[in-house]
Amino acid sequence: MKTKFISPATVKRLPRYYRYVLQLEKQGIKKVSSKELANTLDFTASQVRQDFCQFGSVGQQGYGYDISILKETLLNILGLNREYDVVIVGAGNIGKAVANYPGFKNDGFKIKAIFDVEPGKLKNYDIKMIEDLTSYVETENVDIAVLAVPMDVAQDVATIIEKSGIKAIWNFSAVDINVSEDTIVENIFMSDSLYILSYMIDKKQ
Amino acid sequence: MKTKFISPATVKRLPRYYRYVLQLEKQGIKKVSSKELANTLDFTASQVRQDFCQFGSVGQQGYGYDISILKETLLNILGLNREYDVVIVGAGNIGKAVANYPGFKNDGFKIKAIFDVEPGKLKNYDIKMIEDLTSYVETENVDIAVLAVPMDVAQDVATIIEKSGIKAIWNFSAVDINVSEDTIVENIFMSDSLYILSYMIDKKQ
Repeated sequence: MKTKFISPATVKRLPRYYRYVLQLEKQGIKKVSSKELANTLDFTASQVRQDFCQFGSVGQQGYGYDISILKETLLNILGLNREYDVVIVGAGNIGKAVANYPGFKNDGFKIKAIFDVEPGKLKNYDIKMIEDLTSYVETENVDIAVLAVPMDVAQDVATIIEKSGIKAIWNFSAVDINVSEDTIVENIFMSDSLYILSYMIDKKQ
Repeated sequence: MKTKFISPATVKRLPRYYRYVLQLEKQGIKKVSSKELANTLDFTASQVRQDFCQFGSVGQQGYGYDISILKETLLNILGLNREYDVVIVGAGNIGKAVANYPGFKNDGFKIKAIFDVEPGKLKNYDIKMIEDLTSYVETENVDIAVLAVPMDVAQDVATIIEKSGIKAIWNFSAVDINVSEDTIVENIFMSDSLYILSYMIDKKQ
């Protein structure tokens, strides 16, 4: 079920739909209306309807959307209907948090190896040396590298990852990294979320 | 300089403007155009101009925006012109990562105490017991609680935080929490970012 074009604004909302649909499924609920989705997720009902139009056939307006079809559709659109091989680069607090992240494995993200500049052990993994990343990637499939190193070395390590041939980076390093257009980068900037929080606190006072 | 209404869509873009303006300032740059902001941040130039209209006077279109005025304006809007007293609840990997987050202190977020169910030490902090949170808040000002506990206890701990009188929660627990409307919650869902990454990888293939 490869889909039509999905607008960037809709893409940003996909994970929240998906998480909420999983939650409804767990509760044994079979149908959900655009109004309920909008209320719970703090979107407008018209956003929800427009988003769902882009998904193809997931239900009829007025009758509500079928949870199991919706789940399957979102799973397919998000590319969660397959497995991803992941390496974590950086075995500090963030690397550890990612390695221990619940649901990571359930969603099909499989941690294959952990790299750092220091040897050691993390969960069941013997930490490999970062200089061995390239030779590792020569023999093993890696879809995603988690970049979890201190900000002052983030660019250098990103370059190593890119040169190794890994095509996607999940960047936790708190700085923007420069890689070729060919490499997919998704950033988690903790500070962005913190600034939104301070905005909300300040606005309220 | 308290400002007019700022639309939710604009609010979401504020942290990225702010980070980029800081970066330009570091590079000694004095002015930036809406076009350059748009290109770098992947917004449209018209979004940038509309956003900046809401900020009040930050420069004249065609002449570019003055970096130092822009920085000051964003700092004020984001509520970063003051200090926030923070407690971290949960001293696991995520609590540790937050405690060690660079720039946290520079942005005016001051970690005052760390709570957990197990005693111990984290950085310079003696970990306090979660059951002592309420009495702590009676004598100490706390603006923000970082919720960094496992998902199965997240709701219970969120309730404890709320009852203690803390009015804002930065939620890393990977589940939605129910608190009164009076309590501000900002969530960091790692999985949302991961799903966007899988979407981008899958779309490319």
